[in-house]
Amino acid sequence: MKFFSGIYQGESMIGVIYTKTNETINLTEASANYGVQLPSTLLACIQMGEEFVRMVHSVLDFVDQETEERPFKIHFEDVQLQAPILRPNKNIFCVGKNYRDHALELGGVEDIPEVPMFFSKSPTSVIGTNEVIQIPTDVTTDIDYEGELAVIIGKRGKRIQTEDAYDFVFGYTIVNDVTARDLQSKHKQFLIGKSMDTSCPMGPVIVHKAAIPDPHDLFITTRVNDEVRQQSSTSNMMFTIPELISDLSKVMTLEPGDIIATGTPAGVGKGFNPPKYLKANDRVTIDIDRIGTLMNTVENEVY
Amino acid sequence: MKFFSGIYQGESMIGVIYTKTNETINLTEASANYGVQLPSTLLACIQMGEEFVRMVHSVLDFVDQETEERPFKIHFEDVQLQAPILRPNKNIFCVGKNYRDHALELGGVEDIPEVPMFFSKSPTSVIGTNEVIQIPTDVTTDIDYEGELAVIIGKRGKRIQTEDAYDFVFGYTIVNDVTARDLQSKHKQFLIGKSMDTSCPMGPVIVHKAAIPDPHDLFITTRVNDEVRQQSSTSNMMFTIPELISDLSKVMTLEPGDIIATGTPAGVGKGFNPPKYLKANDRVTIDIDRIGTLMNTVENEVY
Repeated sequence: MKFFSGIYQGESMIGVIYTKTNETINLTEASANYGVQLPSTLLACIQMGEEFVRMVHSVLDFVDQETEERPFKIHFEDVQLQAPILRPNKNIFCVGKNYRDHALELGGVEDIPEVPMFFSKSPTSVIGTNEVIQIPTDVTTDIDYEGELAVIIGKRGKRIQTEDAYDFVFGYTIVNDVTARDLQSKHKQFLIGKSMDTSCPMGPVIVHKAAIPDPHDLFITTRVNDEVRQQSSTSNMMFTIPELISDLSKVMTLEPGDIIATGTPAGVGKGFNPPKYLKANDRVTIDIDRIGTLMNTVENEVY
Repeated sequence: MKFFSGIYQGESMIGVIYTKTNETINLTEASANYGVQLPSTLLACIQMGEEFVRMVHSVLDFVDQETEERPFKIHFEDVQLQAPILRPNKNIFCVGKNYRDHALELGGVEDIPEVPMFFSKSPTSVIGTNEVIQIPTDVTTDIDYEGELAVIIGKRGKRIQTEDAYDFVFGYTIVNDVTARDLQSKHKQFLIGKSMDTSCPMGPVIVHKAAIPDPHDLFITTRVNDEVRQQSSTSNMMFTIPELISDLSKVMTLEPGDIIATGTPAGVGKGFNPPKYLKANDRVTIDIDRIGTLMNTVENEVY
């Protein structure tokens, strides 16, 4: 199942796409009509834990039994998508240099980290697919893209062992870890160069883990306009998803709805000579197998 | 006025202390009785903006007019205090090396930053005064304290000019930016070494800005047990509060309830030779003029 947040016929809603039939259901409407109480945001649903997935199955069973017009079946393309988690309730966790070839393109062998380099993006940076990445031209000239697989945590946990880590995953989405390279290096700690408003495109959907047998066997491709810039497989991560979850949870409690962007492969703008940074009217698309395409255009911020 | 969150007679509440008379009012009870709708958390109150302060004034006027027993007046020491913002809705912003003497004790002149070094602490790290800092002894041996003045944002803003910055402040509190020095240096980016559960003691109260004429004229003293470790004035910050607010908001929208810990002066455990890290049964107190004392004991985490 794929979950999404959006606006449909003027109303905020969450929806689900059946993996097999590709049918789209307005989950907000369907659950209300069948007397199932679902929270209004996908984040709050995910915070319910596995109970949420069970409730969705019940709702879908109701929908299936509906012999009439199936009023809750909608056309996915009629939905104005938003970020699946519109407003995370803490910063997005990110990992620096988690693909060897990306560490090398930004420096040399000495830049390959021995332990994961965790930093974060402010929740105010989140936008959805089809929304606009705004360049704050008064403070940066070097805006870069980073296509990444992101993990959505589904269960609260501390000191999670690597062998148990997938039990704590809800699903997966795509994140573009948009970065102001000049601010990133000037401020040394990455937070500010990673937290511009609109610098965290996310989506288009969250795919439940049941539909992704191996998250380390997914192709990832980033294009700017029609040029392929990044092309890799999530099999090339140096620190795996279970290792990232284990390392974070050694010190802090992870919570449902937490988002971990797992790092980006080679091919970022900074890796080219001369660098190929984003500019107004560019179009960035990130494709990941089994998840979909995250697409954002670029504009100069008007202020 | 000073605001706090806590448990009183078994009930969650928020309270206010009159600056002049030092009387404590159970704001949750008083507002309910006078028919004023206040949110249940101090964060949600602060998110109301200046309207919240106006409502508090109305409630206090009602309380003042009450000629009988003043049932909403309570003894501050009967409240089991919690962190004033129990659960921030994004990571706490922090600033590295914002006091020259602290930058020098951790390195040399080359460690004095030219621009603020922003990083963050996860909201799961927050605890209140009198709560226990737990050392995760399986991952760190080098737990350090950092006494800091923290700013609470009161109004949404982007590209806030330094001359307008105090308009966007709600008030001030104390934060202990507890740090695992070994994790901080091993992971290079500070997030993980700063985000252990219980590593963000905060409180005891948030003082409204009206009661602090100059936040850069406050003495700050950190003691471990009875030994004074840090003693400085907020006048020694290199990047002032207006500069920090301006710099953050150049790239991202600041929101009411955001917390900015403004950095720590010299005297952290790592600055001694040999280092004086925290250990079980230690007692850390941070005093800041006009705010109060944040006190936490230290234990080894049981897991």
